[in-house]
Amino acid sequence: MRPTIKALTVIRYGDDVARTLAQLAQLVSGKVVGDASVEIVAVNTLEAAGPNEISFLSNPKYQRQLQTTRAGAVIVSRDYGEAPHAALLQVDDPYFAFRQVMVEVYGFRRQPGGGVHRLANVSPTATLGEGVTVCPFATVEAGATVGPRTVLYPNAYVGENATVGADCVLHANVVVYDRCILGDRVTLHAGTVIGQDGFGYATHGGLHQKIPQIGIARVCDDVEMGANCAVDRATLGETVIGKGTKFSDLVAIGHGTVIGEHCLLVAQVGIAGSVTLGKYCVLAGQVGIAGHLKIGDQVTMAAKSGVINDIPSGQTILGQPAIEINKAKKNYVAFVQLAELREKVRQMERRLAELEGRK
Amino acid sequence: MRPTIKALTVIRYGDDVARTLAQLAQLVSGKVVGDASVEIVAVNTLEAAGPNEISFLSNPKYQRQLQTTRAGAVIVSRDYGEAPHAALLQVDDPYFAFRQVMVEVYGFRRQPGGGVHRLANVSPTATLGEGVTVCPFATVEAGATVGPRTVLYPNAYVGENATVGADCVLHANVVVYDRCILGDRVTLHAGTVIGQDGFGYATHGGLHQKIPQIGIARVCDDVEMGANCAVDRATLGETVIGKGTKFSDLVAIGHGTVIGEHCLLVAQVGIAGSVTLGKYCVLAGQVGIAGHLKIGDQVTMAAKSGVINDIPSGQTILGQPAIEINKAKKNYVAFVQLAELREKVRQMERRLAELEGRK
Amino acid sequence: MRPTIKALTVIRYGDDVARTLAQLAQLVSGKVVGDASVEIVAVNTLEAAGPNEISFLSNPKYQRQLQTTRAGAVIVSRDYGEAPHAALLQVDDPYFAFRQVMVEVYGFRRQPGGGVHRLANVSPTATLGEGVTVCPFATVEAGATVGPRTVLYPNAYVGENATVGADCVLHANVVVYDRCILGDRVTLHAGTVIGQDGFGYATHGGLHQKIPQIGIARVCDDVEMGANCAVDRATLGETVIGKGTKFSDLVAIGHGTVIGEHCLLVAQVGIAGSVTLGKYCVLAGQVGIAGHLKIGDQVTMAAKSGVINDIPSGQTILGQPAIEINKAKKNYVAFVQLAELREKVRQMERRLAELEGRK
Repeated sequence: MRPTIKALTVIRYGDDVARTLAQLAQLVSGKVVGDASVEIVAVNTLEAAGPNEISFLSNPKYQRQLQTTRAGAVIVSRDYGEAPHAALLQVDDPYFAFRQVMVEVYGFRRQPGGGVHRLANVSPTATLGEGVTVCPFATVEAGATVGPRTVLYPNAYVGENATVGADCVLHANVVVYDRCILGDRVTLHAGTVIGQDGFGYATHGGLHQKIPQIGIARVCDDVEMGANCAVDRATLGETVIGKGTKFSDLVAIGHGTVIGEHCLLVAQVGIAGSVTLGKYCVLAGQVGIAGHLKIGDQVTMAAKSGVINDIPSGQTILGQPAIEINKAKKNYVAFVQLAELREKVRQMERRLAELEGRK
Repeated sequence: MRPTIKALTVIRYGDDVARTLAQLAQLVSGKVVGDASVEIVAVNTLEAAGPNEISFLSNPKYQRQLQTTRAGAVIVSRDYGEAPHAALLQVDDPYFAFRQVMVEVYGFRRQPGGGVHRLANVSPTATLGEGVTVCPFATVEAGATVGPRTVLYPNAYVGENATVGADCVLHANVVVYDRCILGDRVTLHAGTVIGQDGFGYATHGGLHQKIPQIGIARVCDDVEMGANCAVDRATLGETVIGKGTKFSDLVAIGHGTVIGEHCLLVAQVGIAGSVTLGKYCVLAGQVGIAGHLKIGDQVTMAAKSGVINDIPSGQTILGQPAIEINKAKKNYVAFVQLAELREKVRQMERRLAELEGRK
Repeated sequence: MRPTIKALTVIRYGDDVARTLAQLAQLVSGKVVGDASVEIVAVNTLEAAGPNEISFLSNPKYQRQLQTTRAGAVIVSRDYGEAPHAALLQVDDPYFAFRQVMVEVYGFRRQPGGGVHRLANVSPTATLGEGVTVCPFATVEAGATVGPRTVLYPNAYVGENATVGADCVLHANVVVYDRCILGDRVTLHAGTVIGQDGFGYATHGGLHQKIPQIGIARVCDDVEMGANCAVDRATLGETVIGKGTKFSDLVAIGHGTVIGEHCLLVAQVGIAGSVTLGKYCVLAGQVGIAGHLKIGDQVTMAAKSGVINDIPSGQTILGQPAIEINKAKKNYVAFVQLAELREKVRQMERRLAELEGRK
């Protein structure tokens, strides 16, 4: 199913130290079926992995590749007992074990270091924590605070009186508007904007008259956002992105909206203003939520859902308008045969008229 | 309904001058019910406001909060006569009065000033009006013109021979391509791009061959756009964003499209090329309009509408494909019970067959 | 149908050399009907063109304008034999001939030149080919390679060990992350980001734990992307954008996805991770494709399609979920009359009950 992927020729993040499968098994509390002494130097896909590489199987869709992979070892769930060529590393949660091995072998991107570059623009009234990196063409405006070890890539912008916590990474061209607040360990990918004015106008005399947007946007600890997202500042109070929540790319959040902790928002999701979203919600790609709605905890929304009502906790929804997923799926099954249904009704009407004609 | 919002601890834009409710009543031509001498120092939400703060009620959804708010005063429509704790300020249009009070108390964001920074990049052949601010790492290319008092935030880019009017604000990382034209009082939020090449290719010999995009994009007076929008330049002629029109974030406009005056385009709206949109149209989030269509004046489109036909003035539409909203709503009501309808038809068919069998 | 467009007052890319219609006919292998000696100095729309300008008719929607145009000449297909005022230039493919004339008369945007600006930030360990232009505030990080004649506009960013080919144009604020690879003749419009981390988290212990994204994004030769697009790097291996493929604005591509050659992706398309898209696919605006799907060659997707199944080569699809377009259109026809269908079923049920009551 997967396309052929060329072998990794990239410079590795990692240390190029070989680890035995036995060592990795210990790391992930797994059980080896096969040769535990095989030396692992890299992680790769089932298709591309070679004898000294480890792969993983977590999506059953790729199950058949277990038969053909040339990987030296494969991380699998406890359900899988053997593979023709690879040793197996059985674990409770293959995807999480894969993550643990990735971190062990590669670690994370090495961030640039070296203090404040001479071509950076840091206000004399800004406060920089210990070990902060400000790359060329990055700006920290007056009164802003940047916490220890935080990295500002080139062209990143921290506005007046804004606060960025410790160990944050603001990639190239990230913008944090005045007075907005980022917690600790926040990662914002390139082009993401926090705290632009919300879409607030009072229409009067034929003109859309701008309402000062004096609130802020607050991004809590451990949030990560993809590229080119946009989070409005609140008119009053705060737009909040809860702790541990992750966005993919091109996500738009309206003013005054509060996103709970540990949510996942996939690419191109758009949430209007004054929405409350609970904890552990998962919003698939291109979902839209109308303004002023209250969404509970652990709500899951299928891709492209259009949400126009409050949704209680725990529900999974689908569709436009979005409704409970099982009901929605039945409707969709009927929908893709709707033309046939209409034709059937027409035929039935003729039969009915004929019956009525019999007297 | 609304989430708990922490009290505003932000640095105020405003002047921290107290105003009596009577003074504010005069400003908004309103009538006070209750104590007109209460001193107001801030504006806040119904939930968060305290005794020296004024709030407002314009969305009936939040009506119950009138009973519990601790605000010193609340701006309401003429329909509301009393609240347990707050004085009421009755006006014709509470949202506009709220806007007036916001402007009075806070004003708008104080823009940076100080001329052309030594780390800015302004071509010797560019023309800057009086009082222009060019922040560090902003660029004004050869032949470009920037009008009086306009502010270019860090990393803003004004291309060759482009024209930016007076009193504009280009936030960080805004890009205006060569030869494009911005009117006066245009505000573009961070990351918005005006005038990139339109999506124009002639496919020939198996290749998509690029057509030079020699037109421009013109953004008229008093337009405001959110973050990370993208407005294509025209192949020939102009892409036009009409006077007083406002975009939220991540809006995409195709080449040669002409948007009328005073429209509102909410986040993630996408309009293809060569579309004409009239005046005072309102497009809710994630609406899409196909190419070469003609949309009249005062057309309202519900969120996620997919427009594939010309729409006459004054219509409100919904759906994919978008149709007149009352018709569309009836269809949606039927749609969410479509599976039941199909089941009913099946049962009726069995009953019909039985009747036919009776002879 | 088209709005009135003001005459082009822009500075021309072109050389302002007049060409006779006969000369242009030779260029495009066309046949002149009318005066072949008319001198052409510009290209313009049917509505705006004057006597020394050439226009074109390729979309039949604008056919009536042939009667009223004041253009000196119009490029048309072989089907059109005369126009009241204009000479006709008959060709096999009017849109491609229009493109040829546009290139002849105007050429393409003249890129800035002049080597590495003193306010650019180029690592001493980066490799720049001959004739590279690095504008102010652009960055080329350590170990990166930029091919001959490539232009980096202001604030463009090329990450550590990234590779950019020859004759590329990275407009303002474009970001290429570390180790990512661009082929030759790649054009990326302002704000587009290549290679940010994919959306990869393993949820464990109530936390979404980040998986190092050690793969890359590869953009092949002759790709062009609009403004503010976002292409994730792969977790392992490569995200690939195939040769000759073109994106409009605000397109999002997930990690590990492989887009074939010569595809067209219109604005706001979103493709999730691990998708394979074949060659010569056309995805209209706001299309979404779910993860791990396999799409064949020459697949066409109507605007806003939501794709949740593998699609074989050659198919045209529409809808949410997307199905074969002719079937989908019949369903949509039924859908927009769904309320009537339901009402009819209700009436039939009453008639049926009455018949049943007759005994």
